[in-house]
Amino acid sequence: MNAELTFLYDKLSNQSKTYIGYPNTQILDFENLSPFLNLTINNVGDPFVGNNGMNTFKQEKEVVEFLGEILKLKKEDLWGYVTNGGTEGNLFGLYLAREQFPNGVLFFSKESHYSLQKIARILGLKSCIVPTQPNGEIDYSELDSAIRNLKHYPVIINANIGTTMKGAIDDIRKIQIVLKKNKVARSYIHCDGALLGAMLPLMDIGPKVDFSFDIDSISISGHKFFGSPIPSGVVLTRKKSIQHIENPVEYINSSDTTLSGSRDGFSVLVLWQVIKTLGLKGLKDRAADCLNMTNYTLKALRKIHWPSWCNPGSNIVVIKKPEDAIIKKWHLAAESNIAHVILMPGIRSYQIELFIHDLVDSQTSKPKEVFFLKEETHGDSIPHYL
Amino acid sequence: MNAELTFLYDKLSNQSKTYIGYPNTQILDFENLSPFLNLTINNVGDPFVGNNGMNTFKQEKEVVEFLGEILKLKKEDLWGYVTNGGTEGNLFGLYLAREQFPNGVLFFSKESHYSLQKIARILGLKSCIVPTQPNGEIDYSELDSAIRNLKHYPVIINANIGTTMKGAIDDIRKIQIVLKKNKVARSYIHCDGALLGAMLPLMDIGPKVDFSFDIDSISISGHKFFGSPIPSGVVLTRKKSIQHIENPVEYINSSDTTLSGSRDGFSVLVLWQVIKTLGLKGLKDRAADCLNMTNYTLKALRKIHWPSWCNPGSNIVVIKKPEDAIIKKWHLAAESNIAHVILMPGIRSYQIELFIHDLVDSQTSKPKEVFFLKEETHGDSIPHYL
Repeated sequence: MNAELTFLYDKLSNQSKTYIGYPNTQILDFENLSPFLNLTINNVGDPFVGNNGMNTFKQEKEVVEFLGEILKLKKEDLWGYVTNGGTEGNLFGLYLAREQFPNGVLFFSKESHYSLQKIARILGLKSCIVPTQPNGEIDYSELDSAIRNLKHYPVIINANIGTTMKGAIDDIRKIQIVLKKNKVARSYIHCDGALLGAMLPLMDIGPKVDFSFDIDSISISGHKFFGSPIPSGVVLTRKKSIQHIENPVEYINSSDTTLSGSRDGFSVLVLWQVIKTLGLKGLKDRAADCLNMTNYTLKALRKIHWPSWCNPGSNIVVIKKPEDAIIKKWHLAAESNIAHVILMPGIRSYQIELFIHDLVDSQTSKPKEVFFLKEETHGDSIPHYL
Repeated sequence: MNAELTFLYDKLSNQSKTYIGYPNTQILDFENLSPFLNLTINNVGDPFVGNNGMNTFKQEKEVVEFLGEILKLKKEDLWGYVTNGGTEGNLFGLYLAREQFPNGVLFFSKESHYSLQKIARILGLKSCIVPTQPNGEIDYSELDSAIRNLKHYPVIINANIGTTMKGAIDDIRKIQIVLKKNKVARSYIHCDGALLGAMLPLMDIGPKVDFSFDIDSISISGHKFFGSPIPSGVVLTRKKSIQHIENPVEYINSSDTTLSGSRDGFSVLVLWQVIKTLGLKGLKDRAADCLNMTNYTLKALRKIHWPSWCNPGSNIVVIKKPEDAIIKKWHLAAESNIAHVILMPGIRSYQIELFIHDLVDSQTSKPKEVFFLKEETHGDSIPHYL
């Protein structure tokens, strides 16, 4: 590497040590795949149709099928592909929804990912932003009145499986009760499961969201829990939902069913390697480790009386917003008076100890104290709201 | 690498030796960047706004600015970003167009990339598919009647700078004459320059297309001429065009101006390295080499009387469709009675010799002959139509 690249590498490596505010896995080990960087792999077209090109469709199907299995979608009903990230998955799911219900109204909570507004605009979808509860979950009675006010329109729901800021999970059962109460005959439920979509099915605690709940599509990130160094994701849907958009293209000898044209076959190998190496057991351990570290962080914050809480089943710890220097150093996401720490795979207790130390240090009115927290292993996450 | 990955690597390496039908560069040397695979770089947000995250915004801006320079867009008027590929760039450019002219009609030729129909559908744009000339270029008199029939609508043009199958280049000047003739006051010209958008400005011959021609946006592929192993691209536009879509987002501490949310910072390094290593001179040599090999291939095909031709300034050689075994072995793109070979950087004369040999072999009615073609260097490409 030349001097500029070496400088950049050192800078980024250094930053990664205090990167606890955004959902980046800190377990990365993909240099073994580097020979593939000297090939131009292109998963253009539909992985379930395939073609004769230089692609990793076999591995892509295995990734999609693994996620289909943990998300309880029967193999014969399953369709999906590896995307460039959660946003593409959300756009794809809501595109399917709009093709099914062109005059549908998209309902999403005001704590949804910022991409939702952009996607509604791109798709030209009428949308209705629904207020949330204090924990970040959609307010079901507000959703109820919103749907009542817009009766006669088909309903397209974006349910958040882990909101961006608070890790809140919208309850699909409660949404379905609202739909039933309003006698909605035409509806589509897309789940933005970028952060928790693949983690919840791997956990013993927390709510569950999968296709057994009659959802229509889900978008999951590949660069969060699975830890791809290149932004990626997986979108899953039912095979019948893509009938509206299939389009055989002679040039690529496949069907142009995906949103992107040329698609990254390298990220597919990354996701495939993580799944094959860890297996279901290893992935469950990884998820449990995230929750253990979440509890560890909550306890440590309580010891110093720093207001903090988390939603059950989530690895996001919401905290009172600290001063700017700490936000900058620890790369915290902040909005109004709160910030958050995300306990992604690989974040260790010594990092949390140093972070806590900085928080204590910043409370200049209090006497400074040096302390070390011992790593503990424990069970369930502790919901405790600000 | 485990056994499956080794098998896959060998299979793909082997395929790449006969990969002359799709625009994949065969010069790839990016293993030096592999340490970055152990970091999660994420260029989320607007590269020209920036943020404090683990990103390669500096390099991204340099890539965009380099392309802005060769495409004659003043630095102070320039905006752009590194996309996931040509399709994202086309979607972005046409999204800008639709935001400017919500009731505009999109005109594109019937030989446009297959993504155009999908994009028109996603954006809900009324569209009009215009017939082409035999060389693949849009038929300007047909465009003229189409615009005349739809007068009073704003006109959104997708001009092809290298059609997918024949490498044809729509003439921006002629399009503008049509617009002027029809007194179109509201228009937007997007260029799909996936293949030739960045090559034409580097060549001494062939038509030129750049921002001095009053185009509004252009999409270029990063995995074609520049040879990124991961599909990528660059979209360029005028700063004023993005005013309609800027959206500051506190969570990412940037503006959500791009289509994707989390964006690949690794591909940025790949493109940056190619541009920095080769420089303008090296890239010009690479483009000249493609044209030389194009001429070499045309001459070789003529020697065996295999019908073939190419558009001036293009590195796509259109040929009479050979038998299926040859299409499969050489990964040729085929449509109706034609196929094509794309002379991408790194394709060498021995590969063309072997291909020609297979063509000769397939003409079983003729006596078999073994022959070797000597590599020649020469000048202009020779347009010669089937």
